[in-house]
Amino acid sequence: MRLEDMIFISVDDHVVESPDMFDGRMPAKYADQAPRIVRTDRGDDVWVFDGKEIPNIGLNAVAGRPKEEYGIDPTSFEEMRPGCYDVHERVKDMSAGGVLASMNFPSFPSFSGRLFLDTADKDMALAVVRAYNDWHIDGWCGAYPERFIPMAIPVLWDPELTAAEIHRVAEKGCRSLTFTENPAMLGLPSFHSDHWDPMFRALVETGSILNIHLGSSGQLAITAPDAPMDVMITLQPMNICMAAADLLWSRVIKEHPDLRIALSEGGSGWIPYFMDRLDRTYDMHHTWTGQHFDEPPSEVFKKHFLTCFITDPIGLKLREEIGIENICWEMDYPHSDSSWPDAPEEFHAMCEKYGVTDAEINAISHENAMNWYGFDPFSIRPREQCTVGALRAEVAGHDVSVRSFDTGRFEKSVPDLAELQARATA
Amino acid sequence: MRLEDMIFISVDDHVVESPDMFDGRMPAKYADQAPRIVRTDRGDDVWVFDGKEIPNIGLNAVAGRPKEEYGIDPTSFEEMRPGCYDVHERVKDMSAGGVLASMNFPSFPSFSGRLFLDTADKDMALAVVRAYNDWHIDGWCGAYPERFIPMAIPVLWDPELTAAEIHRVAEKGCRSLTFTENPAMLGLPSFHSDHWDPMFRALVETGSILNIHLGSSGQLAITAPDAPMDVMITLQPMNICMAAADLLWSRVIKEHPDLRIALSEGGSGWIPYFMDRLDRTYDMHHTWTGQHFDEPPSEVFKKHFLTCFITDPIGLKLREEIGIENICWEMDYPHSDSSWPDAPEEFHAMCEKYGVTDAEINAISHENAMNWYGFDPFSIRPREQCTVGALRAEVAGHDVSVRSFDTGRFEKSVPDLAELQARATA
Repeated sequence: MRLEDMIFISVDDHVVESPDMFDGRMPAKYADQAPRIVRTDRGDDVWVFDGKEIPNIGLNAVAGRPKEEYGIDPTSFEEMRPGCYDVHERVKDMSAGGVLASMNFPSFPSFSGRLFLDTADKDMALAVVRAYNDWHIDGWCGAYPERFIPMAIPVLWDPELTAAEIHRVAEKGCRSLTFTENPAMLGLPSFHSDHWDPMFRALVETGSILNIHLGSSGQLAITAPDAPMDVMITLQPMNICMAAADLLWSRVIKEHPDLRIALSEGGSGWIPYFMDRLDRTYDMHHTWTGQHFDEPPSEVFKKHFLTCFITDPIGLKLREEIGIENICWEMDYPHSDSSWPDAPEEFHAMCEKYGVTDAEINAISHENAMNWYGFDPFSIRPREQCTVGALRAEVAGHDVSVRSFDTGRFEKSVPDLAELQARATA
Repeated sequence: MRLEDMIFISVDDHVVESPDMFDGRMPAKYADQAPRIVRTDRGDDVWVFDGKEIPNIGLNAVAGRPKEEYGIDPTSFEEMRPGCYDVHERVKDMSAGGVLASMNFPSFPSFSGRLFLDTADKDMALAVVRAYNDWHIDGWCGAYPERFIPMAIPVLWDPELTAAEIHRVAEKGCRSLTFTENPAMLGLPSFHSDHWDPMFRALVETGSILNIHLGSSGQLAITAPDAPMDVMITLQPMNICMAAADLLWSRVIKEHPDLRIALSEGGSGWIPYFMDRLDRTYDMHHTWTGQHFDEPPSEVFKKHFLTCFITDPIGLKLREEIGIENICWEMDYPHSDSSWPDAPEEFHAMCEKYGVTDAEINAISHENAMNWYGFDPFSIRPREQCTVGALRAEVAGHDVSVRSFDTGRFEKSVPDLAELQARATA
């Protein structure tokens, strides 16, 4: 398949929330207590909520910066590409990057809305969660419904309220929930308790997906305090592997046989080994551990779990073992692991290398995302206008050059599609 | 290749130390303080040392028991197959299992000799470590030098003494050291300090291998206190993955370019994904993290790390990506993940499935172990007497039936070689 004919839906990107997000969305009595942006004496923008200051408005939002600066988080909106927080600019960046549609994880509330967990006034916190979801669904995604898969944050302290919120947002067409990879790490009941059953039931009743993003337990795999950053970066998918094992062997899967879970930013290449390990563990140990499945655990895994990758050569090579329908693509804009704006070129080159068929490419690049999330952009935008070529043509003049915030220097010109493709297929 | 013509060397098995191991091996002044076996009022055998009682004489030493009983650790020598602790019986079990030679990790001192770390009398503790190594090398392995790759335990509290011990045992022909996967988890300086340099230098000077067994940091990946055992079992290789990342990015590899490390019981199937992740991490992040390698980190990994597997279909499928010379085979006798006595049948079936060539089979089943560990059994025992067929013929009457210690019932007859092979190739 030609690169320009591919269609991309990314199931893992990140929104940096805009300062006006809560305007008009909070009940009058709590309007003054909504999270708000404050500029500090140092010139930084911070979110302020419930006596807490959250400095990372755009944690790792480094799209468009040179790699040498990836370790420095932007601390003000001016330091970020507007595409991080302005939906109109985001859509232009997506088009320039050849991406039709995207699902966006939150930034300042954490991936699972953990920021609101310890708020004493639970009624106020609930109002904030609902306002967040209204903004995300109606404001951000609603501005371009063919370009975004909406996703809600949970009411983390109350599974019944989370269930109610799942139903409420489903009415608006949102059938995706972000959650923590391990509630036990947050001091909440684990996946092995029955605490979360109302949430799981609501997900199944509404056909919604549970999304577990790496790092959403608030913990990363750290080997030693003096270990270099590279160790932690390399090991990030380990957290997701732990979450996958935790859920696969838990009562959750057995009690909620229609539940579906996405392992966000977890990669795919480790899945075949993991499935071998599941089956081996079952074969060698289930008679004394007391586990029971009616089929091999690897088959159970395929029925329940969606995997995704940014770039993952081995994951693509082993696509049959993973299951073609169990793989989605993601871009991770605007974080430092993203290949924006030439992510499609990277995917295209991998597909050439591993002889991926057109049907497989379509499944991984967009059809699986449409099927798992019940998302149909083609009903709004004709399919032929959704390709990399069509999208890039629409924003031909859009500036995607890399800019150093240290020097102000532009270091890379607007990518030329033909040149990018020549490079990718060289 | 026919199963009976294969030759197997296992780089990861376990010895249960025999009660008389310290007899005549301790300096006279410390003879009374050597670890000793005591039978408790409950009828259990325990090691007693330095005021501590270590009940797990044979932690997970369940070879020859039905799988239903795998969760119950034997607490007395009578509850174990004699092959766990009697070298003459062990060699018969190895022959019946078709295995020529084996490297044995310790049991009661822990994989890294951690038991002796907190002993107040360091001089006495050093005498115990030396006596342990003398017993292991001269007593256990020395009884059948063509059947064992000797491996020493370190003087964990002192890198200089460890270096001296590495040189001392190398004089006896032992060029293998077991160590912890993460000293920082034991409260010791991490791999990122220069603390361990004397040990690394001694390993390189003597051509010895550093062996890092999963679980040797004293920690396993646990998701929640109420998680089922299956989660922990599935995730065991995660610890080794953390150790591999920790060491790969550490100064150790850069400062000691000839150091070689074995990831014991870590599996191989996850390595290609891990190497992709290493290269991606380097490509995306090294300019700000400050890492530098002269070649891709995946190539650095291949030069330094040996992997091994018990059974690992994906690892065998991806043998070229891992590197044929970077894969060894292991049996894990007498632990519950072992396939003894029909481990060769399992390996043979996997090789048939993935079209593994004879040269590749020989490399993985025994030649890589001989090369990495500088071990040459054929100089003592002619090669044609080292095959599965030859070894099993020697012990045709040896009882390898599975016996329940609850019922005393024998549940499986002595395997018939022809029947086993028919099953394996069915």
